[in-house]
Amino acid sequence: MDALKKRIRTFADDRDWHQFHSPKNLAMALAVEAAELLEHFQWLTEEQSRELDPEQLAKVRNELGDVLIYLIRLSDVLGVDLLEAAADKLEMNAEKYPADKVKGKALK
Amino acid sequence: MDALKKRIRTFADDRDWHQFHSPKNLAMALAVEAAELLEHFQWLTEEQSRELDPEQLAKVRNELGDVLIYLIRLSDVLGVDLLEAAADKLEMNAEKYPADKVKGKALK
Amino acid sequence: MDALKKRIRTFADDRDWHQFHSPKNLAMALAVEAAELLEHFQWLTEEQSRELDPEQLAKVRNELGDVLIYLIRLSDVLGVDLLEAAADKLEMNAEKYPADKVKGKALK
Amino acid sequence: MDALKKRIRTFADDRDWHQFHSPKNLAMALAVEAAELLEHFQWLTEEQSRELDPEQLAKVRNELGDVLIYLIRLSDVLGVDLLEAAADKLEMNAEKYPADKVKGKALK
Repeated sequence: MDALKKRIRTFADDRDWHQFHSPKNLAMALAVEAAELLEHFQWLTEEQSRELDPEQLAKVRNELGDVLIYLIRLSDVLGVDLLEAAADKLEMNAEKYPADKVKGKALK
Repeated sequence: MDALKKRIRTFADDRDWHQFHSPKNLAMALAVEAAELLEHFQWLTEEQSRELDPEQLAKVRNELGDVLIYLIRLSDVLGVDLLEAAADKLEMNAEKYPADKVKGKALK
Repeated sequence: MDALKKRIRTFADDRDWHQFHSPKNLAMALAVEAAELLEHFQWLTEEQSRELDPEQLAKVRNELGDVLIYLIRLSDVLGVDLLEAAADKLEMNAEKYPADKVKGKALK
Repeated sequence: MDALKKRIRTFADDRDWHQFHSPKNLAMALAVEAAELLEHFQWLTEEQSRELDPEQLAKVRNELGDVLIYLIRLSDVLGVDLLEAAADKLEMNAEKYPADKVKGKALK
């Protein structure tokens, strides 16, 4: 993860893209990539989405990669440790949704 | 990252949420979280987005965590190695956007 | 539609919000509202989404309203006639997806 | 608006797409189109977004059309009067954000 963060930073530096990489713009780019990922699933049933063929999976894998790239980049620009942020949030979720209370129930 | 993946898997298992965690649904949840992140930036200028106050940053950090949690979970359910996917995609981007051609230019 | 456009414009004028209503920001707000709409459906099956109870439907109706408000506002700021834009796009779609070729098939 | 709703309904009927047009799927498609609209603005400054050139504007206009098409379709499938929903929501917003209190201030 840390190596990847540095490679992404170098990638942006080499292209002089820091000027475009405001947190606002990166949050937009992240949302756009998340929607490109979503697009692959919009007309599939849930069952079909569990059984992607190799070609579909390769495309989805690329989109997953794009989302992580922007997520790492945005966290880096903001000075946030992404893995720690997720670990802390998971702990908050565990307290908010105790297993014995929400077991087998969809939220909201 | 790997430890986090396992903790998220356990979190879902403990709540019997596998039934809801189809790739289709997880891609939706990911897009929703990416938009919650975006919401924090929508009325800020780019400059303001570079200088979040501690309270704003704490909220944004939580959203970054949520996005990573769903991204890891979706990748896990699909059997995709997320870090490898991002590393491969970064390499594809480097070929697609040679530094000497796009230096200092916004894409599209 | 035209009456609504004028009411939304007055609403923004009265609050001196033109400064925040750049097309960039309005496009973000629109995407955020579309995701809030999406959120209501993320853990429902397709079948359940066809049979919302009155309380769910009331919430979804509010989100549909929010999306239209920002869509009208963004179109207004850009000087685009929204209904014409949709009518033209529908015609383009009809040519792109001839009924006899795509009948009963999901796209991509 | 009403004529457009009927044309969109016929468009879907002719292609036997009712089976794919669950509210869940249409909400996904709407979010995807909103993100395609967003994509055009992600690397522009706010100033640039106010001064699109004719080619950019034509593309943005198509995306605005797509968003409205799915918004009308989703409302139709749910039996919601879209214009009424927006008018009601605008009234709720007017009460929530009194002009004299929020004048010139960005929300949140």
